[in-house]
Amino acid sequence: MRMYDIIAKKRDGGELSQEEIQFFIDGYTSGEIPDYQASAFAMALYFQGMNKEERAAITMAMAQSGDMIDLSEIEGTKVDKHSTGGVGDTTTLILAPLVASVGVPVAKMSGRGLGHTGGTIDKLESVPGFHVELTKEEFIQNVNERKVSVIGQSGNLTPADKKLYALRDVTATVNSIPLIASSIMSKKIAAGADAIVLDVKTGAGAFMKEESESIDLAKAMVEIGNSVGRKTKAVISDMSQPLGNAIGNALEVKEAIETLKGTGPEDLTKLSLTLGSQMVVLAGHAENLTDAWSLLEKSIENGDALKKFKEFLASQGGDASVVDEPTLLPQAKYQFEVLADTSGYIHEMVADEIGHAASMLGAGRLTKDSEIDLSVGVVLQKKVGDTIEKGEPLLTVHSNQEDIKEVENKLKENIKISPDPLIPPDLIRQIITE
Amino acid sequence: MRMYDIIAKKRDGGELSQEEIQFFIDGYTSGEIPDYQASAFAMALYFQGMNKEERAAITMAMAQSGDMIDLSEIEGTKVDKHSTGGVGDTTTLILAPLVASVGVPVAKMSGRGLGHTGGTIDKLESVPGFHVELTKEEFIQNVNERKVSVIGQSGNLTPADKKLYALRDVTATVNSIPLIASSIMSKKIAAGADAIVLDVKTGAGAFMKEESESIDLAKAMVEIGNSVGRKTKAVISDMSQPLGNAIGNALEVKEAIETLKGTGPEDLTKLSLTLGSQMVVLAGHAENLTDAWSLLEKSIENGDALKKFKEFLASQGGDASVVDEPTLLPQAKYQFEVLADTSGYIHEMVADEIGHAASMLGAGRLTKDSEIDLSVGVVLQKKVGDTIEKGEPLLTVHSNQEDIKEVENKLKENIKISPDPLIPPDLIRQIITE
Repeated sequence: MRMYDIIAKKRDGGELSQEEIQFFIDGYTSGEIPDYQASAFAMALYFQGMNKEERAAITMAMAQSGDMIDLSEIEGTKVDKHSTGGVGDTTTLILAPLVASVGVPVAKMSGRGLGHTGGTIDKLESVPGFHVELTKEEFIQNVNERKVSVIGQSGNLTPADKKLYALRDVTATVNSIPLIASSIMSKKIAAGADAIVLDVKTGAGAFMKEESESIDLAKAMVEIGNSVGRKTKAVISDMSQPLGNAIGNALEVKEAIETLKGTGPEDLTKLSLTLGSQMVVLAGHAENLTDAWSLLEKSIENGDALKKFKEFLASQGGDASVVDEPTLLPQAKYQFEVLADTSGYIHEMVADEIGHAASMLGAGRLTKDSEIDLSVGVVLQKKVGDTIEKGEPLLTVHSNQEDIKEVENKLKENIKISPDPLIPPDLIRQIITE
Repeated sequence: MRMYDIIAKKRDGGELSQEEIQFFIDGYTSGEIPDYQASAFAMALYFQGMNKEERAAITMAMAQSGDMIDLSEIEGTKVDKHSTGGVGDTTTLILAPLVASVGVPVAKMSGRGLGHTGGTIDKLESVPGFHVELTKEEFIQNVNERKVSVIGQSGNLTPADKKLYALRDVTATVNSIPLIASSIMSKKIAAGADAIVLDVKTGAGAFMKEESESIDLAKAMVEIGNSVGRKTKAVISDMSQPLGNAIGNALEVKEAIETLKGTGPEDLTKLSLTLGSQMVVLAGHAENLTDAWSLLEKSIENGDALKKFKEFLASQGGDASVVDEPTLLPQAKYQFEVLADTSGYIHEMVADEIGHAASMLGAGRLTKDSEIDLSVGVVLQKKVGDTIEKGEPLLTVHSNQEDIKEVENKLKENIKISPDPLIPPDLIRQIITE
């Protein structure tokens, strides 16, 4: 078998066999196939795509290119949740204790944030003492005893995907549905998931700006998952404006706590219950989505969810008293209210730009090695569709620097107020089940 | 400017500016742009193509990436001829003295053969003493005094093209009309041609097997040449069967001598006069193609062409007596006649396979560094359309090995005899002038 022939076959629209795809992934991972052949192949794939069988084959080949996490010692169906990334998306912090509180095991491997989207581990580390450096044994024991544990990515997980993604990133071949779908799914499968719930964002703050692309990506991932024996569902959710009100690490933890108490923002609560219900059903803890939803709502109402969150924080060294006393979380020195310049309806709050504004305050990483400031960020007072009067506060900036002129300008430029009323965008666009 | 953006622009079907193309060629030649970006770009180009302006820009950028040969000290219009390569194609050996004999300056930079097609320099080196290692001054003086000289490629000619071609060769991106056309034209322009006559082969023995592709390539090259100020014409000629009768270095020299005497094969004579007439008109030595043709025919008839060939050989150290005594050329130890197994009409003589058979005897290089045997090869007794009786000789194998079973089998497999008469393929398919 020669890589040259595999490139030519795909270039001409041919269908690659499982053996050919395995040959590429093995050879590229080991370095026998050079970058210049892999990038030509990725560009050919960009134009010619991959069918269902090819997508499944490349996903499994990438998943098996490194360590495969074995979670079989954990009782029950391990359902993983993955979000394609958004601004103010703190659903993982809510979902982990929430579904665990009704008995679903949550064995979560999480990452740090990069660019305008935050990372779950960064957020959790706002809780004094909390750490994710557990041994595999501690991790498994935690899940078996308390149903929930979160660790950082460690070991040699999907090296093929890491290497290929880095190459695609510099050769303009990232934006290919089969390659994005297989990249995400290979990581979930290597991380040991039995079933997967995907939150595919759409709109300005999402990787996929167009809803049709988000749907294509979701369908591709659901198809891959189901064809390799991992039950997979996807929710297409709005990311044209930030999710919830808080953007920033400690601020989002506080918002997650409020949501677990039942007093969180409506959109964040709704999305958490939507994703959570899918997880509960996939784990076999409810017959249908309606039952699952009731189960989760009840857990919030009776305090089980919040109790589980405390238990989870404490089990990984975190100070659980932050739940009752959120001021124990890192606090920024200054709070500035940004006021509306005109009256009217909020028409737009451009999610990625608001995320960038929070990054400018120090909430996000610009490069992999940047230090972030856990205390800073933005809390929205209004969302798209709300009315506002001139002089009324639009949002609050939490900052450790006194001069926030540049950040304020960026925020104002990306919030559009107009006299005409409008219906806010639907939060949940579609559920993809096959 | 970033290479990433240039790849993405072409990937999305955009038109690149002269500056963007220059940035790519300069950066790739210097090594600042890595192979993996260049190969992704080449694959994007494969799918999206290039328009007229882009093709002219990449041709000039590649031509100027290294030395540009200055032939201005040679009087008159320097017309270069280029063949896309074929089996038994000895037209350069005929054309150089032929057009020189009517006053057209021929300052030819030539290459060696690779694979199933022979190289002009290899063929010329069958003449005892002949060498192509001339200084630039000797070369120019030769052309000014005798109108003809041939040297090997030296110096740093089109390094961008060399590097890019080598990359395309291993990434399945060779077969792109804009890239093939710009590769060929950049070399001709860097070699100092004022005007260019292209012989674009079509059929089994050609790089382009399909006539429509050959026409597309010819049009692309003619358009590039004319848009960068080099008058360019192209002849599309048949390469489904070998050109002429001889395949092999010394054997082709002997055939060139016969053609210059007026007793060569009909097809080789016709193609030489067709290409030569174009050269004579472009050089301004005849008003039109009919006049040019007569001029060349007369030069063959009155012996001027043959005299010029002797003069040319002698001026580069060659033993000109081979012209009158061809047995002075390298001779193979054995000659074997291959006889027809059945009677009928010759329907096919698959050019590339017959070329490969000659290579098996030692006439062609398998790698750049192979030694070749100048004496061996094949001489066809019949061509497509001819009748043959069972037991009559099809061809003669000139070999230095006694066992030619494998070669004979390959030849017979690729010569089809059938009872139905047929019209042989047209030698000259089309002339492309703009």
